[in-house]
Amino acid sequence: MSTPPPAAAIEPDTLIARVYYEDTDAAGVVYYANYWRFCERGRTEWLRRHGFDQQALMADTGIAFVVRRVEGNYLRPARLDDTLTITTSVATLKRASLSFAQNIFRDTELLFEASVSVACLDTRRNRAVAIPESIRHTLNPGQPG
Amino acid sequence: MSTPPPAAAIEPDTLIARVYYEDTDAAGVVYYANYWRFCERGRTEWLRRHGFDQQALMADTGIAFVVRRVEGNYLRPARLDDTLTITTSVATLKRASLSFAQNIFRDTELLFEASVSVACLDTRRNRAVAIPESIRHTLNPGQPG
Amino acid sequence: MSTPPPAAAIEPDTLIARVYYEDTDAAGVVYYANYWRFCERGRTEWLRRHGFDQQALMADTGIAFVVRRVEGNYLRPARLDDTLTITTSVATLKRASLSFAQNIFRDTELLFEASVSVACLDTRRNRAVAIPESIRHTLNPGQPG
Amino acid sequence: MSTPPPAAAIEPDTLIARVYYEDTDAAGVVYYANYWRFCERGRTEWLRRHGFDQQALMADTGIAFVVRRVEGNYLRPARLDDTLTITTSVATLKRASLSFAQNIFRDTELLFEASVSVACLDTRRNRAVAIPESIRHTLNPGQPG
Repeated sequence: MSTPPPAAAIEPDTLIARVYYEDTDAAGVVYYANYWRFCERGRTEWLRRHGFDQQALMADTGIAFVVRRVEGNYLRPARLDDTLTITTSVATLKRASLSFAQNIFRDTELLFEASVSVACLDTRRNRAVAIPESIRHTLNPGQPG
Repeated sequence: MSTPPPAAAIEPDTLIARVYYEDTDAAGVVYYANYWRFCERGRTEWLRRHGFDQQALMADTGIAFVVRRVEGNYLRPARLDDTLTITTSVATLKRASLSFAQNIFRDTELLFEASVSVACLDTRRNRAVAIPESIRHTLNPGQPG
Repeated sequence: MSTPPPAAAIEPDTLIARVYYEDTDAAGVVYYANYWRFCERGRTEWLRRHGFDQQALMADTGIAFVVRRVEGNYLRPARLDDTLTITTSVATLKRASLSFAQNIFRDTELLFEASVSVACLDTRRNRAVAIPESIRHTLNPGQPG
Repeated sequence: MSTPPPAAAIEPDTLIARVYYEDTDAAGVVYYANYWRFCERGRTEWLRRHGFDQQALMADTGIAFVVRRVEGNYLRPARLDDTLTITTSVATLKRASLSFAQNIFRDTELLFEASVSVACLDTRRNRAVAIPESIRHTLNPGQPG
């Protein structure tokens, strides 16, 4: 029996972003909360590239993915005018939640590493629900049933 | 015939706010866009003190006040740890719009002066409407009928 | 005697930017202060494309361009997931200051128009100085001497 | 021999903050990165109340406390106009670092809980150094020598 191929969806995808004044603070580096803004841009573009339309999903089904927990390690500071590379991949996939592994690089230098756990929420009933099968398939297309 | 007394509502009201790292940028001063955040806090507290509940107004009537135009003069920079005083007063009051005059001080030193024009919008029909009489009365209680 | 050709530097340049959750507010649209963040990104990329290195200029000469005045008209709201086009051009050029005209579009629809006046500041002596000739030339290369 | 009394410095201190439009996003709740802004305000005011002047410490000694790691659990969303209570206490104190435990409440309801690890950095040599004794004493005044 053959090993399934690596799931396309769990390959890291990348987003490039520039650091502007708005991202920095008086210490001369990117403000610590703003690394999470770069991460959210990375996840949003990741979802878009994988065919998700978060607004349509919400409008059609009332389902949204909401952040439940984050962990972040600040390794080296990003600075004004830096060009950052944000990578995003699915780390774990459960019935009603998943977690992303995200990294922020300047060239090959790792500046920030994060784990972001999101839950699949039925916002109309305000409770966690199983990730719809159509979406799950996209998140992890390489896994056999 | 006597001149009407100055309207209570057009007296400047004040809000005190501290400058934190989040407000500053790598130039060591408050980021230019963030003065508008302080102004919005000032207007929100002004409305609250004058009995407005913006969320209730929206929920009950679909009416919201939306910013149409701003002008701002940056006179001196605010810095980390500064304690700012934001003043807010009604400058002009028209049928379907009004404008606020706002200033940001550090002690007695004027750092930023702004004019903010807002329109009264019926968000359900997406068009400007007259400011409801009950609200107009509050905005300008000193004016005779 | 012929009219000089339009200066290359005063042609509008454009930057494309996506609207993410970080840019929006509970009214479902881009928060009014955040249009100024998009404008600052536009000016920064404009300066970069015209050969300015703001950080090098500051380190070498102590000269910085600081915002003195802004005017902005909010015409239509930008929304989550919108792709914005930010245009930047030099509107006026004086001895020690200049002003930028900036527009934010969604496709061909104008959402926001701004005027941003910046002064050339010698930060070591904290006073306005003439724009260095090398820079002035870049800002307005088409004008004869 | 008696147990030393609990250190005053490790009692949670509180800061009150209002949620404004700037803090929210198009999902109608506080944007996930912005809880870290509230936490930073809480830590800054905690340091101030305990006699720290971060800017003076930096100017005099080149020492700064920099965030190395954060963990945050998003339990319930904060919303526009909410009045938040941010508590801050020292959770662990090591030779060259410490960690804060922080919570954000709306009334008695816990919305967000965080752990923030900060290192004591000599910014002139860009390396971790022992927390100066004068500061350590303040962080943990109840501990015997």
